[in-house]
Amino acid sequence: MPDDPSLRRFAYRTAGLRASEIRALFSVASRPEVVSLAGGMPDTGALDMDAVSDTLAQVVAHDGAGALQYSGGQGYEPLREQLVEIMHTDGVAAHPDDLVVTTGAQQGLDLLAKLFCDPGDVVIAEGPSYVGALGAFGSYQAEVVHVPMDAEGLDPGALENTLQRLRAQEQVVKLLYTVPNHQNPAGVSLSAQRRQRLAEVAERWDLLVVEDNPYGLLDFKGEARTALRTLIPERVVYVGTLSKIFSPGIRVGWVAASGSIRDKLVQLKEAADLCQSNLTQHVAHRWFSVQPWQDQVAHFREHYRKRCRALTDALSDEMGSVCEWSEPTGGLFVWARLPEGVDTGEMLATAVNHRVAYVPGRAFYADGSGQRELRLNFSYCDEDRLRTGVQRLAEVVHAEIELVQAFGESRADRRPDDS
Amino acid sequence: MPDDPSLRRFAYRTAGLRASEIRALFSVASRPEVVSLAGGMPDTGALDMDAVSDTLAQVVAHDGAGALQYSGGQGYEPLREQLVEIMHTDGVAAHPDDLVVTTGAQQGLDLLAKLFCDPGDVVIAEGPSYVGALGAFGSYQAEVVHVPMDAEGLDPGALENTLQRLRAQEQVVKLLYTVPNHQNPAGVSLSAQRRQRLAEVAERWDLLVVEDNPYGLLDFKGEARTALRTLIPERVVYVGTLSKIFSPGIRVGWVAASGSIRDKLVQLKEAADLCQSNLTQHVAHRWFSVQPWQDQVAHFREHYRKRCRALTDALSDEMGSVCEWSEPTGGLFVWARLPEGVDTGEMLATAVNHRVAYVPGRAFYADGSGQRELRLNFSYCDEDRLRTGVQRLAEVVHAEIELVQAFGESRADRRPDDS
Repeated sequence: MPDDPSLRRFAYRTAGLRASEIRALFSVASRPEVVSLAGGMPDTGALDMDAVSDTLAQVVAHDGAGALQYSGGQGYEPLREQLVEIMHTDGVAAHPDDLVVTTGAQQGLDLLAKLFCDPGDVVIAEGPSYVGALGAFGSYQAEVVHVPMDAEGLDPGALENTLQRLRAQEQVVKLLYTVPNHQNPAGVSLSAQRRQRLAEVAERWDLLVVEDNPYGLLDFKGEARTALRTLIPERVVYVGTLSKIFSPGIRVGWVAASGSIRDKLVQLKEAADLCQSNLTQHVAHRWFSVQPWQDQVAHFREHYRKRCRALTDALSDEMGSVCEWSEPTGGLFVWARLPEGVDTGEMLATAVNHRVAYVPGRAFYADGSGQRELRLNFSYCDEDRLRTGVQRLAEVVHAEIELVQAFGESRADRRPDDS
Repeated sequence: MPDDPSLRRFAYRTAGLRASEIRALFSVASRPEVVSLAGGMPDTGALDMDAVSDTLAQVVAHDGAGALQYSGGQGYEPLREQLVEIMHTDGVAAHPDDLVVTTGAQQGLDLLAKLFCDPGDVVIAEGPSYVGALGAFGSYQAEVVHVPMDAEGLDPGALENTLQRLRAQEQVVKLLYTVPNHQNPAGVSLSAQRRQRLAEVAERWDLLVVEDNPYGLLDFKGEARTALRTLIPERVVYVGTLSKIFSPGIRVGWVAASGSIRDKLVQLKEAADLCQSNLTQHVAHRWFSVQPWQDQVAHFREHYRKRCRALTDALSDEMGSVCEWSEPTGGLFVWARLPEGVDTGEMLATAVNHRVAYVPGRAFYADGSGQRELRLNFSYCDEDRLRTGVQRLAEVVHAEIELVQAFGESRADRRPDDS
């Protein structure tokens, strides 16, 4: 991480933080003495660098001048054909013409927010939800309303109640944003039964669904999960990315949408940055056409499964009595809950002083919830380092709980003038 | 260009076209039988591909895992240090902390538009102006008001009159957007005297200036041109790009701004796409630190100067009696004007049928002007092909002028129901 690291950034209170909080966390991640469980970085060191080198050499040998030139606004067609293949291995059907290549999934979310959201419109999302999506919707002044989730994912009954309440309030609901597989930050997946029920609710309420699937192929359970795009294709805009199955540094994501939405996304993409990097599109195209990418994904999956196990084992050992979490079905994150009264935002500065970082739960809610929750990443640190991180965190958490029990209130309540 | 080419797209009338028109033009450029003078592509084939290959190999050898990882929102710091060096060779002072790396200059313009423009706000720009900037400001519903330019660039007196008129109309002017060097599309540069006068007007009217300088180093005249950022640093946000001095396919541009503007741009960048591609940032960093990039730029300059001469010589030979143009001071484009009554938008379909393409003048105005103007690119085609293109264009133009003279009105007036 190239930003100047600064622990001072952690001395603030959590109220009102979003992108800056994440930026600060990225900064701290660069300090070697801090075990960062904060970021969402895949372990790019687990890629075969000789294969990467070969891929780059082939791109230049094959069509260097083309790779260094502008691309079209929709993205490099041979790459779009491959992205369709990748979606297919994930059980999702699409046509290359339906795809728009974007700068990671994040730009897909930004362009969708720009296309659909006027100030004051409502976007429904899981609670908690992906911080980058909250940032994208928020930057167009949409209001995010959360629907609770549990170990089976988003609750379709609660979704329908929310839709009813919003209709009664005459609020305009533009879309449902959901990460059905190995959700960030909660680590859980939508159950098969709930996918069916969610599809029915979407049909009944004429709801547009943005299905964001960055982690689908990083499944620890070997379960087939039917995409919402497969159940109700005409209602679902699908967002994908190569960040977690190859590299985030190439910034290749995509949106699959049909007809007029795709056309508008291409126009917005061109207004936003003209076109995607042709060099990274050519690199991705060659990686997924020449290299044994499915073996690489299988390697990532096993690699992260072991690290996930190491993290949750350490949580059991060190904080089993005071901390709850959902066993991740895949992906990169464990979502944990501490006892009443603990404020994970408040606690962060202390944690960083103890050389461990995480993301406070409040970052994942638009409504100020998540005070005693936190997100822990297991994809980037090796198993020893994960255990060390959890040990350090446990010291901080146990001390915090003692303080809370002694004073019977949260630190935030205790120190109103201390910011 | 990877889009499906389609000549049918050219059968429409020009009214209301912007991004789609440009997209269609890019598409046609891919047909080998069409001489495209339409695009704005540098000649990436003139790069030393062995050097490119070495650069990519060094990036992986030096820190492959880092290059494939996420970057910080502001951009890779060693690259920002080099961008400052590049600005310095162009006569502009800045500090790496002031820079935000963006997906080409286009994303810089998009983020600035998002930051400054509310619907109905006014952005002042040269007439004609860069079509991508018009698209960016338009996508946030800003109104672009043009100020005329001539062979010396933007007219500061006309700018002041426009500011007076807009104030009398109680319109909110958010910024002046200008390309002072080798402007796209007009090919001219702001004279030294006018730079001084423009700076004075900006001071007097408390005007924020966005100085877009993609072509500064592609100067055919060897004149030193003082940047507005140097004259009035606190009023100028500077936008740069590596697209024309290295490669547009890496999509590396930047914005130099101070303090709070820079901080907000970083937040908007993170909401838009999290971060820049680290791979292309590492490639750019290595290219500009290891390769003799100034020699490469000198080569581009000489290469384009010759092509520009070939294009304008051909214009003199084939259309000297009916076409006016300003001799380009540098850059990639010649801006030409045909006789009264010719509509270059109308004429485009005929031109493409004659296997030559250009961009109609109306694309470069937000107000419908530019009917008899057109932009011709000289950077991408070799000299023979440029001459062939102008010969084909001349046939079309002469036939069109005969028609206009015979009927005494434009084709658009003649065929109202023909669309």
